[in-house]
Amino acid sequence: MTVIAPNGPLSSAPPASARVGMVGGGHLARMTHQAAVDLGISLEILAQSATDPAVLAGAPHRLAPPGSLDELRSLAERCDVITLDHVLVPADHLDVLQAARYAVRPCAEAVRLAQDKLLARRTLDQAGFAVPPYMPAEAGGAAAVQRFADRWGWPIMMKSRHGGYDGRGVHVVHSIGASRDLLASSPPGGWVIEAQVPLACELTVLVARNPSGYTAVYPVVETHQHDGMCRELVMPARVPADIADAATRLAKSIADGIDATGILAVELFLTTAGDLVVNELALRPHNSGHATIEGTVTSQFHNHLRGILNWPLGSTAMVAPAAATINVIGPPSGADPARYLAAALSVPGASVHLYAKHPRPGRKLGHVTALGADQAEALDTARAAARLLLGP
Amino acid sequence: MTVIAPNGPLSSAPPASARVGMVGGGHLARMTHQAAVDLGISLEILAQSATDPAVLAGAPHRLAPPGSLDELRSLAERCDVITLDHVLVPADHLDVLQAARYAVRPCAEAVRLAQDKLLARRTLDQAGFAVPPYMPAEAGGAAAVQRFADRWGWPIMMKSRHGGYDGRGVHVVHSIGASRDLLASSPPGGWVIEAQVPLACELTVLVARNPSGYTAVYPVVETHQHDGMCRELVMPARVPADIADAATRLAKSIADGIDATGILAVELFLTTAGDLVVNELALRPHNSGHATIEGTVTSQFHNHLRGILNWPLGSTAMVAPAAATINVIGPPSGADPARYLAAALSVPGASVHLYAKHPRPGRKLGHVTALGADQAEALDTARAAARLLLGP
Repeated sequence: MTVIAPNGPLSSAPPASARVGMVGGGHLARMTHQAAVDLGISLEILAQSATDPAVLAGAPHRLAPPGSLDELRSLAERCDVITLDHVLVPADHLDVLQAARYAVRPCAEAVRLAQDKLLARRTLDQAGFAVPPYMPAEAGGAAAVQRFADRWGWPIMMKSRHGGYDGRGVHVVHSIGASRDLLASSPPGGWVIEAQVPLACELTVLVARNPSGYTAVYPVVETHQHDGMCRELVMPARVPADIADAATRLAKSIADGIDATGILAVELFLTTAGDLVVNELALRPHNSGHATIEGTVTSQFHNHLRGILNWPLGSTAMVAPAAATINVIGPPSGADPARYLAAALSVPGASVHLYAKHPRPGRKLGHVTALGADQAEALDTARAAARLLLGP
Repeated sequence: MTVIAPNGPLSSAPPASARVGMVGGGHLARMTHQAAVDLGISLEILAQSATDPAVLAGAPHRLAPPGSLDELRSLAERCDVITLDHVLVPADHLDVLQAARYAVRPCAEAVRLAQDKLLARRTLDQAGFAVPPYMPAEAGGAAAVQRFADRWGWPIMMKSRHGGYDGRGVHVVHSIGASRDLLASSPPGGWVIEAQVPLACELTVLVARNPSGYTAVYPVVETHQHDGMCRELVMPARVPADIADAATRLAKSIADGIDATGILAVELFLTTAGDLVVNELALRPHNSGHATIEGTVTSQFHNHLRGILNWPLGSTAMVAPAAATINVIGPPSGADPARYLAAALSVPGASVHLYAKHPRPGRKLGHVTALGADQAEALDTARAAARLLLGP
């Protein structure tokens, strides 16, 4: 086909720019689209709604459920590589695409680890990585839960084996009675029971990796949760250098071990005894990595694209001594942060990102990042702007 | 109108996010769209072609000539403010919009200065700013040109009064014979004749300004031209501090004097005698400011939006000691830099931006920015990646 361009005919040669298909049109896809624009990459989104954040940012898209194999195959045909904004796509479908020699990154095997908490625990456990004490539980398993709690103590964590995210499907359970109630209404796949580890803090390590096996690891991020949602992020984490080094090595080992491609986020518990225990894996750009946009030479979104395209990875070095990100969560008032944007921008040094989502209490609507001479300064700046975004 | 969102009805209240209309869909509009996505601003483009860089980046758009008053009025009705990616829109049309109380930023009066080199020279001259010796010339004016050259020496510059850009419409003229030939084929509006100033280097100062009169000035940029196109940019400029201070004050005075809003770029000549002489004004994000994306806290594209919306301006401080940008110009071979992107990304620390333009020799297809401990280091990195983008 020859397309007539305003200044003469384009060649009929295949496009020189890479074509990436992403399943999901959320705020991570939105920011991936921005990185794709930088690089002249054509990013096509399989979105669920015309109001998805990536669609509103102008990413070319088709509206289809992520479980449609026909749509996935058609997207794969149009693109050089398929990647994910979320893990709602059935891994079996990704197997089908891989069998047909389409490039799927991350691969189906790795995606299963992000979809199945029990599989992730077992895989990491058997590979020798430290994980919290755990066991599967389904309806009728109260006696086993009681024995687990007898050994590890109350409270225990009960996590939906599949589909939990941002605190959904995760319960802190203080008694066998409460446990029985949850067991009686087991979600599909049942529960994963976990002991609570004595927590000093939570850390995330983002690893960029490409299929050739090259990796680039970002400075360790300290994450602070509230109601199961990550609220505050600090980079680099305020932990001793040997802990940061160990976390970095651990995350890189996991990335190599599961053949991750693009961004892998390894969520870790640092225990009060100074041990690192693996919590969750996420195989995509991650909410804990937003500070990489302003805070490092190459953002996680750029490196995700570079990783899945098997291109050289970019430097993960910081451009400032410290960076902090505050997630902007819809306040109970239902106020729209977009109304208070000008006020928030009055805070010098705050970089505000809004996702163009319809505001709802508890919904992630944006984030604010600030750089600083140290972590406290970066946090102060980011917090001040984030607070203003919530209205009076 | 009530729109049904996936999670329930949206309110019928006016949108909380600001709506900006931009005339022109070039690479500056493309990068402005990326900044608008950060801020959750809805940016609508009046584009000339479906292959315009901003359209390919997904900015909502209508295709229409920039001279269509009906389209401009309709865009103004849909938006909170109208701004420009280029100055091909007739200033008289902007007058009409202003008279109808639409917000046009920059205003028509300021836009005229960017469209009319003679008006710009006279306005700045009369306001007391140093400009090169100049005079208007039209067909039949050879005797006056000879007197001008007798006084200021050959060669002289002959610049098309209207529409010149990137070396087009600009001639270095070494003899009265060559001058006569150009005079005989005078463009509409004729020529502006200028004396060549003894040049030490060229500088650009970017000023962000909002209608409330607040300004934020970026570090002075050193620009290096080749064939009339800007090829290399270095921030901060390698000039003595008193020169940089004087350039900063000069640019701020001009911004205040012409009531600029958004980004104003003041292009300056630094003479061998150490004097600053105003060359050109541009009233929009500018090619000399690309290093602000990675190199400063707030990019020129963010500050353009913040300025025209009368929001607080962002910090123009650098995040590294130095930054350099190399413009990627289509090579004579016609090679497409997109084909060599992976190679260019192998240069650590290089941030590559491609504009998704069809490659043609001499066309601006992208740019590369690098940060560094000093200007030479930043230049080395950016040059290495830019060279790789041109192919073997």
